[in-house]
Amino acid sequence: MNAEIISVGTELLLGHTINTDASFVARELSTIGVNLLFAGTVGDNVPRLKEALESALSRSDLVITTGGLGPTGDDLTKETIAETAGKKLVMHQESMDRIVSYFKGRELGETQKKQAMLPEGCTVFPNDHGTAPGCGFETADGKTIIMLPGPPSELIPMLKNYAIPYLTRGEKAVIVSKIVRVFGLGEGFVAEKIADLTDCANPTAATYAKDGEMFVRVTARAESEEKAEAMCAPVVEELKSRFEDFIYGIDVESLEEVVVTELGKRGLHLATAESCTGGLLSKRLTDIAGASQVFQMGAVTYANEIKTLLLGVPESTLKQYGAVSEQTARAMAKGVRAKSGSELGIGITGIAGPDGGTPEKPVGLIYIALCDGEHTWVRKMQHAGASKGREYLRWLASSNALDMVRRYLTGCTGLEEAAYSKKI
Amino acid sequence: MNAEIISVGTELLLGHTINTDASFVARELSTIGVNLLFAGTVGDNVPRLKEALESALSRSDLVITTGGLGPTGDDLTKETIAETAGKKLVMHQESMDRIVSYFKGRELGETQKKQAMLPEGCTVFPNDHGTAPGCGFETADGKTIIMLPGPPSELIPMLKNYAIPYLTRGEKAVIVSKIVRVFGLGEGFVAEKIADLTDCANPTAATYAKDGEMFVRVTARAESEEKAEAMCAPVVEELKSRFEDFIYGIDVESLEEVVVTELGKRGLHLATAESCTGGLLSKRLTDIAGASQVFQMGAVTYANEIKTLLLGVPESTLKQYGAVSEQTARAMAKGVRAKSGSELGIGITGIAGPDGGTPEKPVGLIYIALCDGEHTWVRKMQHAGASKGREYLRWLASSNALDMVRRYLTGCTGLEEAAYSKKI
Repeated sequence: MNAEIISVGTELLLGHTINTDASFVARELSTIGVNLLFAGTVGDNVPRLKEALESALSRSDLVITTGGLGPTGDDLTKETIAETAGKKLVMHQESMDRIVSYFKGRELGETQKKQAMLPEGCTVFPNDHGTAPGCGFETADGKTIIMLPGPPSELIPMLKNYAIPYLTRGEKAVIVSKIVRVFGLGEGFVAEKIADLTDCANPTAATYAKDGEMFVRVTARAESEEKAEAMCAPVVEELKSRFEDFIYGIDVESLEEVVVTELGKRGLHLATAESCTGGLLSKRLTDIAGASQVFQMGAVTYANEIKTLLLGVPESTLKQYGAVSEQTARAMAKGVRAKSGSELGIGITGIAGPDGGTPEKPVGLIYIALCDGEHTWVRKMQHAGASKGREYLRWLASSNALDMVRRYLTGCTGLEEAAYSKKI
Repeated sequence: MNAEIISVGTELLLGHTINTDASFVARELSTIGVNLLFAGTVGDNVPRLKEALESALSRSDLVITTGGLGPTGDDLTKETIAETAGKKLVMHQESMDRIVSYFKGRELGETQKKQAMLPEGCTVFPNDHGTAPGCGFETADGKTIIMLPGPPSELIPMLKNYAIPYLTRGEKAVIVSKIVRVFGLGEGFVAEKIADLTDCANPTAATYAKDGEMFVRVTARAESEEKAEAMCAPVVEELKSRFEDFIYGIDVESLEEVVVTELGKRGLHLATAESCTGGLLSKRLTDIAGASQVFQMGAVTYANEIKTLLLGVPESTLKQYGAVSEQTARAMAKGVRAKSGSELGIGITGIAGPDGGTPEKPVGLIYIALCDGEHTWVRKMQHAGASKGREYLRWLASSNALDMVRRYLTGCTGLEEAAYSKKI
């Protein structure tokens, strides 16, 4: 099935709102085997929307619109589509009741009421996170039109819970996806290693790279959830056997989530001492709600004196080896662990640039130490993405630190191996 | 002039790459008065690109393509456009020389060389950050076509430095933009207050909201930079007189940039003690290259014992008023200032949620203290965006902290007034 997205909204054409809806819809469509031919954006303008819609219907089986369903005067998607498709708009009582209850007794304006007007005979998609419902229907010549609201907080659940089931209604197909997260291997390398798996049509496997890490999405379609799960399982097992402990989680959100969860399970605590990452590691840990159970103290020690004062890094170490050195990273990890009374301490020191590099210690040289009281491990980052700039280097350093903790907690080896250095 | 953007790339239709190029192009076009009618995305597919191009040329004066200029086999934009527009591709020696020098003597494959093939008679836009040049030309029936590379790091400078001047070549017009950054006033309020200014055609003024703050962009077109500057100046002055010290900078990037710059000018140092923001404030400060001159120490003190141990927050304060209290925020600011030997100390404590709120101390209650040794100011955030979630609350708290330091350094009042509470 070929599909097309039309995003409606003048604000999208002014360039200050980035259209993330289209990406989200595209991604979800691909999981049910729908092929996206075009994605277009038009303003809140009836003739232009009509033109875009007519072009889309002339070449695609499915047209999905996002936006323009709300109560304001420039929300004209429904009216335009109904007219183009030769459908009457009729009041949908259940949607009206929902809108009335959403406003909790406050009086409704006419514009609010028009949100309950929907094309005759359509399948209504309730809006569980706002007022404007969406819908799907077939045109006289067998094309499918779906309308979704613009705000991502409304569109995403409506697409998943109503529009995708509507599209797959004939098939009785259930779709199950597994996200296999990998840290420390390049996307090109992973993609090459699983070319045999990504060629398969059901289940599908596809690689994606983001923020210095990557994931493989395994998706199966079957007549029941159980069967779809059973189809995913061997592919996930195969990925596990190929990438071993470079996989840090299945269906998890991030390295920091895994670290906070694993610390919590074991009743352990982590403390951080950061120089070049400047608090990014503690920020990422505390992005996770509930981090307070496992994270008690973070120190951002930019100045040498503060490294000594707060963490007890010996002045002699700083003098002999410099602030950016394996020895200083070790002393920072040990120091913050002891100071905080945590079982684990992390120390990060390096040169994030753009200035401050020397031939001996170039931008991109970063040492990360993990100390558990008995032993201290150090990972050295070098030349890894130095050209990608300060923000990327800082991010990658914090990811490496999280990966070391994750490996430690789950009994993996490779604590000292810098990400991307190994090809398994 | 009416324009249309066509973004080319199958990866954009799979949904894992968000198309930011189109937004950027849209924004830049608006500054030269070009009106964007449509934005479309097509895959790396000759017939579909051709169809999109033909539709676009039939209704718009200007078509800008992004992507598909690179060396790989699926980069087909140039070939398709040249064919559609009836132009021959010819080798552009200067571009070839640039590509050869980019590869520093390594042998060039045929695919690399094809990047120097450009439509006969076009204006070439050199790629100062990559290999594939862009170009602009007019079709036989007077439409303008511009091709730009896909990677934002190449597209952005090429658009600014070559494509926009190409588009405005006939006019001898220079465009000058001033970004007036505002913190602490809502967009709706600001937009209402300057409705008279935003109605004007040249200079234009437009409001934009992002991450809990907003900015006004003032853009003037004139025959010389001097004249355009002179046209912007009175509008900027008018904004200053209307929004006074809620304006934190003109043509600056962020609050943290202003804070680091202003501290540096005065030779002052700042130390941070964070609880609910978990290092986000120190992360933002150290995002600025050169922060090491003014920022020496950050403490992330999640646990009460650490607040006492590291910052000297009295146990009695924590017991009597609780960790989330004005008194604890004050003690944290004082403590980190003293410990670090900095002139200024910030303390932040609060409840970022989603858990941990009580009827007395709900999610969204955050205290921020600034201490200069003589005096301590406290700003209280409450109900400000509590429903927008943990990430937003943490961001807003760190922005409020930066705003307090900015106001202190530049001699403004209002250090204790929570953002958005005041309507001037």
